[in-house]
Amino acid sequence: MNILKNLLWPEIEELIEKKRWEMLKSVISEWEAPDIADLLTDTPDDRDKIIIFRILPKDLASDVFSEIDFEDQMIILQKMSDQQVKEVLLDLEPDDRTTLFEELPGKILQKYLNMLPKDERREALGLLGYPDNSVGRLMTPNYLAVRPDWTVKDALAHIKQIGPDRETINVIYVTDSNWHFLDALMIKKFILADPKTVVRDIMDNAFVTLSPSDKQEEAVKLMEHYNLTSIPVVDSENILVGIVTFDDVMDVAEEEATVDFHKTAGISPFEQSYLDIGVFPLFSRRVVWLFCLVFVNTISGMIISHFEQTISLCVSLVFFMPLLSSSAGNTGLQASTLVIRSMATENTNFKNSILIILKDLCVAIMIGLVMGVAVLLLGLLRGNIYVGISATVAMILVVIISSFLGTILPMILRLLKFDPAVASAPLITSCCDIINVAIYFSVAKWVLESFSR
Amino acid sequence: MNILKNLLWPEIEELIEKKRWEMLKSVISEWEAPDIADLLTDTPDDRDKIIIFRILPKDLASDVFSEIDFEDQMIILQKMSDQQVKEVLLDLEPDDRTTLFEELPGKILQKYLNMLPKDERREALGLLGYPDNSVGRLMTPNYLAVRPDWTVKDALAHIKQIGPDRETINVIYVTDSNWHFLDALMIKKFILADPKTVVRDIMDNAFVTLSPSDKQEEAVKLMEHYNLTSIPVVDSENILVGIVTFDDVMDVAEEEATVDFHKTAGISPFEQSYLDIGVFPLFSRRVVWLFCLVFVNTISGMIISHFEQTISLCVSLVFFMPLLSSSAGNTGLQASTLVIRSMATENTNFKNSILIILKDLCVAIMIGLVMGVAVLLLGLLRGNIYVGISATVAMILVVIISSFLGTILPMILRLLKFDPAVASAPLITSCCDIINVAIYFSVAKWVLESFSR
Repeated sequence: MNILKNLLWPEIEELIEKKRWEMLKSVISEWEAPDIADLLTDTPDDRDKIIIFRILPKDLASDVFSEIDFEDQMIILQKMSDQQVKEVLLDLEPDDRTTLFEELPGKILQKYLNMLPKDERREALGLLGYPDNSVGRLMTPNYLAVRPDWTVKDALAHIKQIGPDRETINVIYVTDSNWHFLDALMIKKFILADPKTVVRDIMDNAFVTLSPSDKQEEAVKLMEHYNLTSIPVVDSENILVGIVTFDDVMDVAEEEATVDFHKTAGISPFEQSYLDIGVFPLFSRRVVWLFCLVFVNTISGMIISHFEQTISLCVSLVFFMPLLSSSAGNTGLQASTLVIRSMATENTNFKNSILIILKDLCVAIMIGLVMGVAVLLLGLLRGNIYVGISATVAMILVVIISSFLGTILPMILRLLKFDPAVASAPLITSCCDIINVAIYFSVAKWVLESFSR
Repeated sequence: MNILKNLLWPEIEELIEKKRWEMLKSVISEWEAPDIADLLTDTPDDRDKIIIFRILPKDLASDVFSEIDFEDQMIILQKMSDQQVKEVLLDLEPDDRTTLFEELPGKILQKYLNMLPKDERREALGLLGYPDNSVGRLMTPNYLAVRPDWTVKDALAHIKQIGPDRETINVIYVTDSNWHFLDALMIKKFILADPKTVVRDIMDNAFVTLSPSDKQEEAVKLMEHYNLTSIPVVDSENILVGIVTFDDVMDVAEEEATVDFHKTAGISPFEQSYLDIGVFPLFSRRVVWLFCLVFVNTISGMIISHFEQTISLCVSLVFFMPLLSSSAGNTGLQASTLVIRSMATENTNFKNSILIILKDLCVAIMIGLVMGVAVLLLGLLRGNIYVGISATVAMILVVIISSFLGTILPMILRLLKFDPAVASAPLITSCCDIINVAIYFSVAKWVLESFSR
């Protein structure tokens, strides 16, 4: 499918340019919804977007609509008649509808809610009632449930009857007549079982559940850990209120990864895409850490001031400052990145942590020696032996200490129940730089005072 | 399930400590395989690990075995009789067997291969024949195929017969009698169809395929894009040689994310976990970037040397170096992280890129002004108005230029067909520092020469 798409791409653009909609329709009706969504996103002209959306067959249209960005969704909805909007809203899965609704401004949300029949409106309001980033906002009530006292044959007949309306039938849920959750069974079990067996007899009580107020991250974790494609959501009275499915959770996982990358660079989390976020929200999320670090970096500055006399004596000391400062920051950052990622993906316990600290120490000593030699050669080339020696000794010490700091800082943060990712690149590099200037100028002062005169 | 586990944890540890294996067996037989795998990983004593593995029911044992690390797999295998090893190997799914085999030293691999019956041995050798990190190494030949001329009833009877041996039956594959791939159909289609329908009539030709030589990253991309739980793998003659499933692809996605985080910190990719990698391989992966950057940072040093006279005139200029250098590096890093992540997850085209550059410019000007004010206040506090003014002007310029550099560098790298992630934190911060020292000391020289005398 994707190969086909790549081959046809320039031709598709030509079809759009020349407004040959009938031809385009016959080509893209064969495509998968995510590919058509990409086409819509990439189409620059808003009017073209709307025409492309309108030529889609009805069942494909709602799948495509749920795959495109909120901005494109609004472009399309705003150009439609109320009747057409109503049809789109009704065709959306309840979870995709929540995703659209939670972004809408209040006035439009109210208008759209009023377009829905009573049951759907109540359902939509219920889902919107759960907190931001909660499982409730992600779930769909469109699951398929059977009763424990039915035979497998009855269950399959029921599945056959209402299956076409359901988002997934890979997992069938067992509930009592009051919708209390009893078990989650793979469809495989029903197909492989003797039709006369009672559902109760194929139940295995092997399930994981979520609560609608759980954070969406929890759904990601459970799905990855247990290799699940859907998870039942039960309320405090054990009533099965919905299910979260693989596709929605994958999207959350991707957003989470983006937040983690941003955190690493000292950017506060934001929910929109980089393309969509406004200038001011972006400014505020970037400036916070930068501004806070002014104070941390001032400490380095103050340490340097303390050594102004030493620097006056030998201004060429400053030559090595960028190299030492960058090496300190980078080794610290490498160490912290390794530890933070290891904490996020592996089982790290106390014993492991000690091993990691020792391993990092060995590696840091080796790196320190290599970098020390590089600095010594540079120092000899520059011709000032005392500065060269000072920088070499400082480099070795600074690399080892920075790496150690990068390793233990995330560990300490976790012990204190903070997110280890608070130890972002900007914070780590600034802290390492304090160590760097303190060590470099102390060593230099001692070397210059002891030997150079 | 996971809640149960948390509650029982101290009690489980007590059972292991007191060697009450019968009791432990009855408790953990109710668990899911991933939880038992965690228990095995967390059990410090090797003998305890082996006993826990041996008390597992046979069908659970192979699932648990495939979930634990290679190191723990070897601990268990080495303490087993050949007959027991053979049983474990035979119970493993072919893809999990490949994962084990690809880590084994040659001698042990040969021994284990000889334990397998002829067919399984040939299959294992075939899978190991695909390149490292290829889809071939990830796939299982255990799929479920039906023929297009069968009725749905025949197909369901076939599924019922051989389904219990197959890894998944959520997707059923249609092939001709020579195993040429024709279509991939959700099991839903078979259940919902009239039993008398011919399979050909429910085929939809909506599928994505992989080649066994494709990179595993490709499987991750397709699965995320099309929301699939399994993908058929066909060879150059369109023969269906296997399928890759969701659980294995999720593991690849996690490894990939780790590699991306490491790249960000200037660490070359490695395959083992941080806990398992040796000191020397780790050293070599960390030192490369650090060493290369010695030369980049030397440029900064040389620029500073050029201004030694200016610095001698006013040593307190050095006070602002850490702050300016860190702010330059951090704004550059923020910008590059935003762009790299946006490229990885969004559809960025030429028009978007221009918008991003303009947006970044606005944000950078705002950040520059805020940081400039902070520096000006610091300068006034320090009492040297000329240094303060120089640092303020430099800060504003440096922040704007660094942010711009961080934004366009990944874009240029991508245009030149390099991985944008080459623009790692260490590289970006070092480049920004060159700009920083050049601007700061040029401004300072001009200010000091023009006004201070």
